[in-house]
Amino acid sequence: MSTVRHMARQARAASNLLGVASAGARDGVLRRAAAALRSACPELLEANARDLDGARALLAAGELDASAFQRLKVDAAKVEEMARGLEAVAGLRDPLGRVDLRRLLDEGLELQRVSVPLGVLAVIFESRPDAAVQIGALAIKSGNAALLKGGREAAASVRALVDILRRCLEEEGLPGDALQVLQDRADVDALLALDGDVDLVIPRGSSALVRSIKARTRIPVLGHAEGVCHLYIDAAADPAMAVALARDGKLQYPAACNATETVLLHRDCAPVILPLLARGLPGTELRGCPRCRALLPDLVPASEADWDAEYGAPILALRVVDDLDAALAHIRAHGSAHTEAIVTEDPDAAARFLREVDAAGVYHNASTRFADGYRYGFGAEVGISTSRIHARGPVGIEGLVTVKYLLRGHGQIVADYAGPGGRPFLHRDLSPGT
Amino acid sequence: MSTVRHMARQARAASNLLGVASAGARDGVLRRAAAALRSACPELLEANARDLDGARALLAAGELDASAFQRLKVDAAKVEEMARGLEAVAGLRDPLGRVDLRRLLDEGLELQRVSVPLGVLAVIFESRPDAAVQIGALAIKSGNAALLKGGREAAASVRALVDILRRCLEEEGLPGDALQVLQDRADVDALLALDGDVDLVIPRGSSALVRSIKARTRIPVLGHAEGVCHLYIDAAADPAMAVALARDGKLQYPAACNATETVLLHRDCAPVILPLLARGLPGTELRGCPRCRALLPDLVPASEADWDAEYGAPILALRVVDDLDAALAHIRAHGSAHTEAIVTEDPDAAARFLREVDAAGVYHNASTRFADGYRYGFGAEVGISTSRIHARGPVGIEGLVTVKYLLRGHGQIVADYAGPGGRPFLHRDLSPGT
Repeated sequence: MSTVRHMARQARAASNLLGVASAGARDGVLRRAAAALRSACPELLEANARDLDGARALLAAGELDASAFQRLKVDAAKVEEMARGLEAVAGLRDPLGRVDLRRLLDEGLELQRVSVPLGVLAVIFESRPDAAVQIGALAIKSGNAALLKGGREAAASVRALVDILRRCLEEEGLPGDALQVLQDRADVDALLALDGDVDLVIPRGSSALVRSIKARTRIPVLGHAEGVCHLYIDAAADPAMAVALARDGKLQYPAACNATETVLLHRDCAPVILPLLARGLPGTELRGCPRCRALLPDLVPASEADWDAEYGAPILALRVVDDLDAALAHIRAHGSAHTEAIVTEDPDAAARFLREVDAAGVYHNASTRFADGYRYGFGAEVGISTSRIHARGPVGIEGLVTVKYLLRGHGQIVADYAGPGGRPFLHRDLSPGT
Repeated sequence: MSTVRHMARQARAASNLLGVASAGARDGVLRRAAAALRSACPELLEANARDLDGARALLAAGELDASAFQRLKVDAAKVEEMARGLEAVAGLRDPLGRVDLRRLLDEGLELQRVSVPLGVLAVIFESRPDAAVQIGALAIKSGNAALLKGGREAAASVRALVDILRRCLEEEGLPGDALQVLQDRADVDALLALDGDVDLVIPRGSSALVRSIKARTRIPVLGHAEGVCHLYIDAAADPAMAVALARDGKLQYPAACNATETVLLHRDCAPVILPLLARGLPGTELRGCPRCRALLPDLVPASEADWDAEYGAPILALRVVDDLDAALAHIRAHGSAHTEAIVTEDPDAAARFLREVDAAGVYHNASTRFADGYRYGFGAEVGISTSRIHARGPVGIEGLVTVKYLLRGHGQIVADYAGPGGRPFLHRDLSPGT
């Protein structure tokens, strides 16, 4: 058996134990880990310093970019932030053992549907070492085991952080093997072949990372490869609101997946709103379609490729459309089903947009940047999914559980309910309680 | 663009329209189709007769087995059954537009999570022509388009049935392309490569079919390749109940995926219960482990392969285990996470079993044969899933929907809520209403 398969099997066994551990024990691990992180701060900074030394060489050789180098850095404030993150996850409601269906199939034959862990997660992230702690905490809270692989430049930091979490699991009488660190890219390749042993792959990083993982595995992947989000400015839009939403959508954090990439303008309002946009988004490169450029000749010409671009930068594509139908058609053709917004004072246009756009998030008079697990009040975010299977949109810790059906009887057999003259089912729903 | 990709794109466009059609229109299609099936009965029987002629040749050539030939047959009673099935699906509660979360992120900024269709289904089934009607009805009800591929021996029957459904869609002003028939195996291969264009593959048929499809696609597959279900007879089992559950589990319908394949017996009760089982399951081939055969020398010796066998026939494997832990270990090693049952009067043993067994269904004192969407009261069954992602266990029509998040605001921007001094979120849950 390959090493990675062996690790996955150990993770499965650990998950079986963790999944039936009490909420108190799972939360206990997280609280212990918060304290342990704080007291191990010097050692963590030391491990991170080793990573930073290596990363400087990669940076000089052009194998690591400056922003990845920044994300790699851990200081005392970052350690405190991780510790607080652990405590916050400990404080979330237990996602396990929740009963969402209770039904008497017949007197004395009760069906329940109850939440249980998915089992074994694989988490692949890039340079941020704190990703290991965040996702490790969510895994422990939800009774899942996780195989973790960070960027090679973060190896020492990730190892030091995960060692602490493993020790805290064992101090609480739980298996440390619930969290394991993969070594290198060959391990990741081996891991991605383990459908059956791994239940869900969670990539945390660039869309290039997500795309590459999706292309290489049959294991379900929670994530989104692209975030091409639109703001459609309807004829009946409030101009000041339209500009504010475009500015926030594009500039509040341009690298985010929920940033607005293209603004579509109804032809009737374009003459008024285009100049306002140009003034309202200073420092932003505006790329316009020919109809935009007829109104505002200074715009950079947009090419076909702009309609599919996720800039991750202060660049915004602009297109004039004839009407709502044309806007909907553009979004169908170029949207990534992430988050789409309309700005309008016309309730009918808003209703049609909310109804007809097929995306994880569809907004009326709100910034696309709201698409986020914390802003939605989920307490934690596992990722944002543009898949239609399992979870869609921002995914909280509920995305890490599945269900099982429990049936409690008194010896009932199916033959008694079968065929003509068979006993009918009762199918009476009971209150799920907790 | 390949023909099949083109069909899938047409299906997507049809699904976009069907998904926003009213419940009345979608149910109207189904009621029309029920009437149309009844009046087209002669033509349907004629099309089926053509299939049966061809199938006789396949049967003679050994390319089709006798049970598949039986399943291919359509008579007037079967047509009436299909018509009633359509009316029953029309009578189910609308699975679309259901709001399961309503939350004020802030005053005047309301988040809703609402159910929407998955989009494009691919349904691959074998010789039963009525499968096309069943799944076609569930697809229309849930606003999904479906690409259908039946066994080649059923081609004329499937075509005739789907033509009726397509005509009824169009009579209701909806796109007939929501249901399309694939021609041959090459089409299926092309289809299975269309991740991105097809959202879910639903195989209806043998576990060999499911396994072959799972191995060939990256599209999520709803189904189960195996159903190796166990009944564990605990030391504290009521002997008569144990025998009744084993008999029902094995013999009520041996070909079902939820049939009991292996009975595990606690060593303390084995001497009493083994002879009762042998008497209680006449005509069943009992294959026993050495400890069983020491108690009942007539048993056929079981080999290692028996512990993993899904017989689909009146054959039952029997194994004596030392205790509950040994039973749990056997189930972990050999179960297919479908449905597992314990029979015991000991509440502690039952509680441990329900808690620790990791399967879609875990039962106490009830037959494994209860694992079924109709018996669970789902009104319809799309399939039974042993996957942990999306849906697990018997899947009703809810397995054909996903969600989208709607956010309705008044121009709110994220910048106002960001950083220190930012406005806090309210996160007040409202009653979901409908």
